[in-house]
Parts: sequence; C-alpha cells; structure tokens
Amino acid sequence: MSRVVVRSFSVSLDGFGAGPDQNLEHPLGVNGHEMFQWFMSTRTWNQMQGKEGGETGPEDDFAARGFENLGAWILGRNMFGPVRGPWPDDSWKGWWGEEPPYHTPVFVLTNYEREPLVMQGGTEFRFITGGIEEALAQAKAAAGEKDVRIGGGVATIRQYLAAGLIDELHLAISPALLGRGEHLLHGLDLRALGYECVQHVAGTRAVAHVVLRKTTPS
Amino acid sequence: MSRVVVRSFSVSLDGFGAGPDQNLEHPLGVNGHEMFQWFMSTRTWNQMQGKEGGETGPEDDFAARGFENLGAWILGRNMFGPVRGPWPDDSWKGWWGEEPPYHTPVFVLTNYEREPLVMQGGTEFRFITGGIEEALAQAKAAAGEKDVRIGGGVATIRQYLAAGLIDELHLAISPALLGRGEHLLHGLDLRALGYECVQHVAGTRAVAHVVLRKTTPS
Repeated sequence: MSRVVVRSFSVSLDGFGAGPDQNLEHPLGVNGHEMFQWFMSTRTWNQMQGKEGGETGPEDDFAARGFENLGAWILGRNMFGPVRGPWPDDSWKGWWGEEPPYHTPVFVLTNYEREPLVMQGGTEFRFITGGIEEALAQAKAAAGEKDVRIGGGVATIRQYLAAGLIDELHLAISPALLGRGEHLLHGLDLRALGYECVQHVAGTRAVAHVVLRKTTPS
Repeated sequence: MSRVVVRSFSVSLDGFGAGPDQNLEHPLGVNGHEMFQWFMSTRTWNQMQGKEGGETGPEDDFAARGFENLGAWILGRNMFGPVRGPWPDDSWKGWWGEEPPYHTPVFVLTNYEREPLVMQGGTEFRFITGGIEEALAQAKAAAGEKDVRIGGGVATIRQYLAAGLIDELHLAISPALLGRGEHLLHGLDLRALGYECVQHVAGTRAVAHVVLRKTTPS
C-alpha cells in the first residue's frame, strides 16, 4: 500500500533541519553540511555519484532504504533551488545536474507557475501552485502502489506533519550543533498528531537513527 | 579542577526536558516519566532506593558517573517541589524523603527566603534568593575541588547555559515523544555559546547519550 514517507532526513542535535542563511553557496544553510557526514560516507551515496566504495552497515542500510519503492517525490521550492520570487527564466534546473537522483516525477511546491522540466534518468520536475494537498494528490496518482517521499526542506515537512499527512519519518539525529537555522519540530505536537518512535538504531558516526510512525489518527 | 556539570539529564526525542502541567502527581510533568525509563532500569538507581539488582552497561555507567566527584548541587525551585509563591511553612522537604540522594549541600533557587534544611545523609538544602550567579558562587565555595552539578529543571539549566556557566552536559535523548512541555534548547544557540558534542554513546533502551562540552569561550 502506498505511504507518504520522509527518509534519511538529517537533523542536528539541537533539532535543526537546515542551517541559517541558505543560498547558492550554502544549499543546506551555513554549517548544514555537518549533519550529512553520515550519508556522504555511505556506499549508496557513492553509487549516486557514479563512484565505487563507501561504507556499508546501518547507515548505508537506511540510505538505501530511502530510495526503495518510491513512485514520486515532493520538494519545497527552496530545496529545488535558491531562486526566490517569479522564475526569471527556465535556466535553473535544480542542484543535481542533468540526471537528478530521483528517477520519478518530482512535484515542486511553488507560488509561481512553470512548465514541467524533463531531466535525464526518469526525473521530471512538475511545478505545483495549488498547495500541499494538491501536490500530494498528484504525487499519489503518479506513484500508484509505490510510496511518495517528501524530500524536504524543513518548511515543507512541517506543513505535511501539521496536516497529519505523513505516515512515517526516518530522522538521522547527527552530533552536529547548529545553534541557528530551521527547527524541524518546534511548535508541532507530534504526540497529539499520533506519532511514536517505532525504531531506533545507533549508527556508526554518532548518529541516532529514529523512525517515527503515525500509529493513531490525529 | 572543579567544573560545573549537568549529568543524566533526560530529554525527549522532540527536545523537551519536562512534560507540561507539573504538579504533585506529575513531578516531571505529564508523561515526563517516559524519558526516565533508562535511568530507572540501572543498578545505580536501584542502589539509590536501597534495592538489589538493576542493569549494568553504558546506561548504568552514565548514571553512576553522574554522582561522582560532586561537592554541591543546584536545583531550581520547581525541581525541589510543587509549592509556588511564598513558603507557607517548612513542611515541604523535597520529593526525596528523609534521606535525599544528594549527600552534599544543595542550593535551591527561589524568590522567597527560607531557613536551611538539614536532611539525613549529608544533604542540606540552602535557599538562595540572589539569583543564579550567587547560587553558583556559594556552590563552588562549598564544593572546593569537586564539581557542582546543576540538577535542573529545564528553566534552571537554560539560565546557566545562556550565561555560559556550564562546562559540560550529559544529555540522554530518549525515544519518547512528549509533544508539549518545557523545551530544553529552544532559542539557545549552543554553537555560538561554544559547545560541541564530544561523546556519543548508544544506550541499550533506544537512548542516545551525548556529552556536550564548552570548548570555546562564548
């Protein structure tokens, strides 16, 4: 059965999902990359870059699982790129080059209309101006029996959490302290929303992997 | 050399250090006890209750270490008890019975003067109305070469953190989701305050033990 999932989403020890001051040089915000050391050490990451090597183990298991059985992705616009306001032209095609790592339709939340963008390897960016529920409806239709992964960023995940629309989240709590940035959970009552921690795995790089599942209706 | 430390302080997965609505029936706030399962399973906890048994291992190591080399404690008033406002009389003597587990002078932050309270086993509660710096000065004088442990609760630790006065914190991140309550770190920039994660140990009950140390001056 199709689920709506968040996978391999890194947060800092102090709860931030992105650093402050995101821009072209800092796609994850200032110091945000520190949260992703675990992911970038994995064999899965290396394979995504067309490289050999990388670590196997619990971290790689989570990284690989994050790409299994996906039929569509949803991204917030700031995760798609640093452009703000109306699209000046079609030159920005995402952070990921000609062949992005999605290989499915990717629904990008935006306030500004734009024609779909077909990339290599099966990724097609489709720009949705009707809000999170419309994006999810289209993503589910595209995914069929497969899962829909909410890729981020923080604001997008928060909106879907608050609406009770996410079935399961895998968070990787990294040992980094960011101090400032976008806090993932502040002001969200995950307990009242029906979530509980159903899995907890200690990683090899001081990362705690936790899986939260919506077990009761909110 | 004497240090100012926080030890065995449990937080929920969503960052709360206490549940909401603390009162006589809920000294840790509603659902707050869920964060302490790891501690209550340890041999150290059993010994504190005068009982045999309990688990050994990383959890017990942290629990035991939390009581080593202590010369004084500091507690916020709400951690000392549920009484609010002026002390109506001297009948409230803490949550811990005739022989509290401190065995040192304990400096209790309060806005209302009260005579010191000598308990069995070496614990003496002294009530400080001059604020956190006065309490720390008196605690350091009492502790000598030994450490001063800030026992909590959340508001007290936050004040000492914000003032840059804590040398080291051991936090136990439990798998519980509280949803509401007192958030330990919200609005505090631990990175700017000079802290970093220097130790990370996976516990046996889905608890991530992290030690944060102030490595640069704030």
